[in-house]
Amino acid sequence: MSSLKEKIEHANNEAVDRMINAQISWVGMKKAIDTCPGMKKNMVMHAGPPISWERMGDAQKKAVCGAAMYEGWGKSIEEADRLVASGEVELSPCHFHATVGSMTGITSPSMPVFVVKNETYGNYGHCHIYESPEPQKLSFGYVGPESFENLKFIDEVIFPVLSALIANIGSFNVKKIISRALFMGDELHSRSFASTSLFSLEVSQYLFELPFDKATLLAFSDFVRRSEQFFLHLVMAASKALADAANDIPYSTILTGIARNGVEVGIRVSGLGDEWFTGPSGPVEGLYFGNYTVEDAQPDMGDSAITETTGLGAMAHAASPALGLTKGSVEMAYKFTNEMQQICCANNPHYAIPYLGGQGSPVGVDIRKVLESGITPVINTGIASKKGGQIGVGNARVPKEAFKKAIVAFKEKYGNK
Amino acid sequence: MSSLKEKIEHANNEAVDRMINAQISWVGMKKAIDTCPGMKKNMVMHAGPPISWERMGDAQKKAVCGAAMYEGWGKSIEEADRLVASGEVELSPCHFHATVGSMTGITSPSMPVFVVKNETYGNYGHCHIYESPEPQKLSFGYVGPESFENLKFIDEVIFPVLSALIANIGSFNVKKIISRALFMGDELHSRSFASTSLFSLEVSQYLFELPFDKATLLAFSDFVRRSEQFFLHLVMAASKALADAANDIPYSTILTGIARNGVEVGIRVSGLGDEWFTGPSGPVEGLYFGNYTVEDAQPDMGDSAITETTGLGAMAHAASPALGLTKGSVEMAYKFTNEMQQICCANNPHYAIPYLGGQGSPVGVDIRKVLESGITPVINTGIASKKGGQIGVGNARVPKEAFKKAIVAFKEKYGNK
Repeated sequence: MSSLKEKIEHANNEAVDRMINAQISWVGMKKAIDTCPGMKKNMVMHAGPPISWERMGDAQKKAVCGAAMYEGWGKSIEEADRLVASGEVELSPCHFHATVGSMTGITSPSMPVFVVKNETYGNYGHCHIYESPEPQKLSFGYVGPESFENLKFIDEVIFPVLSALIANIGSFNVKKIISRALFMGDELHSRSFASTSLFSLEVSQYLFELPFDKATLLAFSDFVRRSEQFFLHLVMAASKALADAANDIPYSTILTGIARNGVEVGIRVSGLGDEWFTGPSGPVEGLYFGNYTVEDAQPDMGDSAITETTGLGAMAHAASPALGLTKGSVEMAYKFTNEMQQICCANNPHYAIPYLGGQGSPVGVDIRKVLESGITPVINTGIASKKGGQIGVGNARVPKEAFKKAIVAFKEKYGNK
Repeated sequence: MSSLKEKIEHANNEAVDRMINAQISWVGMKKAIDTCPGMKKNMVMHAGPPISWERMGDAQKKAVCGAAMYEGWGKSIEEADRLVASGEVELSPCHFHATVGSMTGITSPSMPVFVVKNETYGNYGHCHIYESPEPQKLSFGYVGPESFENLKFIDEVIFPVLSALIANIGSFNVKKIISRALFMGDELHSRSFASTSLFSLEVSQYLFELPFDKATLLAFSDFVRRSEQFFLHLVMAASKALADAANDIPYSTILTGIARNGVEVGIRVSGLGDEWFTGPSGPVEGLYFGNYTVEDAQPDMGDSAITETTGLGAMAHAASPALGLTKGSVEMAYKFTNEMQQICCANNPHYAIPYLGGQGSPVGVDIRKVLESGITPVINTGIASKKGGQIGVGNARVPKEAFKKAIVAFKEKYGNK
């Protein structure tokens, strides 16, 4: 009979193998209510681990109210606030519904989402559509005419074109684009410019076959051109589909989720199923736009750390010296990948990094390695103002508290050695 | 009165400044006969310094015959051969006509070319359209049904769409795309995948406004998608427009041209006007496709080294670790840029390399530095079979003989100290 340690190693290899080798395809577009499992007509999904309305951060609260207004449930932020406080509008983490959401992560029933399939394990991942290249967007907690315009445009132009496009193509290999983009300066979390360009290169020819007028197709192409982070949302859905397939493997100490709601950061561990272990959201260091400072910022927020969970973002930072330069230095890019190597179990040969001689990006954070080394996972992230809107781009760390709670739960479930 | 050395420094600063700071726009598409200065109805332009029909290499000879057949001057390679040997068909270097050509560089009167304008100095550069992603192409010396199909498709689909596209856009900033692509793994000579993707991203929306049927637009977009080196030909025309504006500055020892005809490599020096100084074309080291070896290869060939002349290609190799990996190692990428730094006069802040912390690519090869250091310019290049067709990708060196001849001519013209 094998020892606990051997069982853990075996389980971890299985978890990481699933993340590395599963095939992932974008297969469709749907309204959240029509595809996200467990989604309800009166529900708003949010980024991060579960949180009550009272404890929710300002940026995310605003976005919840904006979504309620978008759905026609309330006419003002105040009215929407009362509906949520009363329980008429339910809140639930995206992660509970095979879904992830960018920044506030707010996704309401009639919002369209990418539907991504894990071809190897049969499960699905979902993510709302990138909202706008401008900072005034609901996903960053901004509620105003601009964000409602964004959502209308997404609903009336981007959603129908993407729906017809993927129906025409059938399915679209997301990991192939990720692999190529890592050779083109993306780390696929805070920099997705190459993958967005490759998306344009791959799909442009199919647009001519779609039943839309020229103005609509032009507006679609123009939106993609202006949206350097457009492809991130497909990568997030793909990463969720990868991570979910690696979850729930008995004995595994591998992370299968990192999610932040702006107040708390939660982690999920494969051997511990769907429980989330939390610690406080930390400040985001990095480049603040204009005169903004860390004082203006909502602490670390968003489900986009699903990219780090599956070996992209800060794990693959060495693939993006350009992002390092934006935030301060090229050296930062190599430093983070090298540091993350120490807490990861494997390297993903399909996510090769040219600057490291083609070595794969580190993948599979082992909670034991985090606690032994004291090195916590780095997250590349956007920065939202507490008042809503994007005010920067930087880095945060997953708090140690979350790992301490997870290891206690792990020992309770599987014994100590 | 300033010394010769001071005059040289002053002239070199001027030459390099012109290459660094001129603004370059793609402004139109035309048939070569209608735009390339000095082009004649019975002329075929070729890559490299001047060469007689007798001494011309096999690959280039074949392409000349193929072009003569394309123009309807002869029905077979033998007939075309007789026409050129008799002088009925004239040969002339592309470089004599504000033009550059890829590999064999063969450009005949009715072939369409990119028209690129140096907005700062008023001159123009031209280059034929990328022919095909397949190896059987006239530009690599292949003559057969495939290459005639390529030229027909270029003439009937790609040329009209590009013409309408640039007429619709008005002008297209080539250097902006180059700058961004250097942050995305291109060195813009042997790797142009990012710039081609960016081209797609930038122009796709305008295609919907053009008066073509969907099948034509689809065929155009599909061609660009499959053609990873598509954008190189715009970069070549842009580099020619940059280099020509830096030519003919008295006292300057800066290279304003490197061109190879597969037999000889020629260099042009700003202070020496339009004279070409030559040495023998060397073998190309690198990755040979399939079972091909250096024995099968035409020695170093093509005008594409105009990219190295203006600070791209091997000069900017550190921007493309991916290309280094393809040819053998990532280290090669840094090694070449560092080495080229020693024979260049300046760094181009508009051609920043992320991996070097945003330092500009070395630009402006000084023939004095080449002779003092013994370091000759490296060229990133494709490899053509002697029998025609592409068989690899690698590196070559400009021969020292060319520099020795140039310095003799320089001393004759300007004195010795």
